[in-house]
Amino acid sequence: MSDQDKSSNVVWHHATVTRERREALNQHNGGVFWFTGLSGAGKSTLAHAVEEKLHQQGYRTYVLDGDNVRHGLCADLSFSNDDRKENIRRIGHMAKLYVEAGVIVLTAFISPFRADRENVRKICGNDFHELYCKCSLEVCEDRDVKGLYKRARAGDITDFTGISSPYEEPEAAELQVDTETHLGECADNVFNYIAQAVKR
Amino acid sequence: MSDQDKSSNVVWHHATVTRERREALNQHNGGVFWFTGLSGAGKSTLAHAVEEKLHQQGYRTYVLDGDNVRHGLCADLSFSNDDRKENIRRIGHMAKLYVEAGVIVLTAFISPFRADRENVRKICGNDFHELYCKCSLEVCEDRDVKGLYKRARAGDITDFTGISSPYEEPEAAELQVDTETHLGECADNVFNYIAQAVKR
Repeated sequence: MSDQDKSSNVVWHHATVTRERREALNQHNGGVFWFTGLSGAGKSTLAHAVEEKLHQQGYRTYVLDGDNVRHGLCADLSFSNDDRKENIRRIGHMAKLYVEAGVIVLTAFISPFRADRENVRKICGNDFHELYCKCSLEVCEDRDVKGLYKRARAGDITDFTGISSPYEEPEAAELQVDTETHLGECADNVFNYIAQAVKR
Repeated sequence: MSDQDKSSNVVWHHATVTRERREALNQHNGGVFWFTGLSGAGKSTLAHAVEEKLHQQGYRTYVLDGDNVRHGLCADLSFSNDDRKENIRRIGHMAKLYVEAGVIVLTAFISPFRADRENVRKICGNDFHELYCKCSLEVCEDRDVKGLYKRARAGDITDFTGISSPYEEPEAAELQVDTETHLGECADNVFNYIAQAVKR
């Protein structure tokens, strides 16, 4: 078979348990809430804080981030531009499947390239919400909780976003939050945004 | 960075919403129920029938099969032995993440190689349950609902399990069901098995 025919011998089945029925059971809709921003901008911290609020109110949630994706599904990928692209593609498809399962999925990845994020938007359609965690490089580098900026400046890490690889800011994110100074407020804002977006 | 260091600059975060809390909310545990067997053995049909029963009783479920994986997450993979291996590896990791989300995930893939299934067992640990859908090649080929066996016999499809590529039967599946003649009974058996396995 040629590459184009790779999935031509896959036949679609009829499933009776639909997304709609799962969402009815959960009493809220699914959705993909895509946190993007520099390393150290607070994406994972914010996503987990928002998830805590959602869970306490009975929402079905899951956070995808480097912690649970990079060591498993994408353990074969490096941080080169090509591999970042493939990483984001896989996460986009996985997020779509969580939405089909009726789950609110929060993703926390730098996802520095606009084209890759737009590709996920295509995959997930109207279920995709881009949340820009805006924080200056100076502040992120000053925080450097993981010591990564230091290693990047020393040349130990190549293709590091903000240092040796670009970050392309969102041009029309559904929500932008200021994670430089107001992380607590951000959690409230994002929670309110999500609660509204998944309302049935 | 060397290949071995690919994920060394990923730092683990503390998430407060744990699998345990999600399972408590769902009132059942998560688990991976891995249907394996020849093409035409009834894996997808059975998985969807069982999911219908589970959903009606309020269980949070999702079915992963060729329909929703091969066109998305694994659209870049062919049916060569290497790509089948990578396909199953990715599905195993995705299934693990569904379990972490508290979901009962039913997977319906031929997954012909014992080593690949054992790899998923390693990934998912005690959450992995292998369900062998046993049906003779003769009956599967006679059904040929997708017309794939005909195409495989004609040589249009290479590496086709049972024809031009081996199927390695499970040696110690958690459950074996006879999908050759008793598909209705199988659904009841599998439902009962899962309900017991995910009981809190």
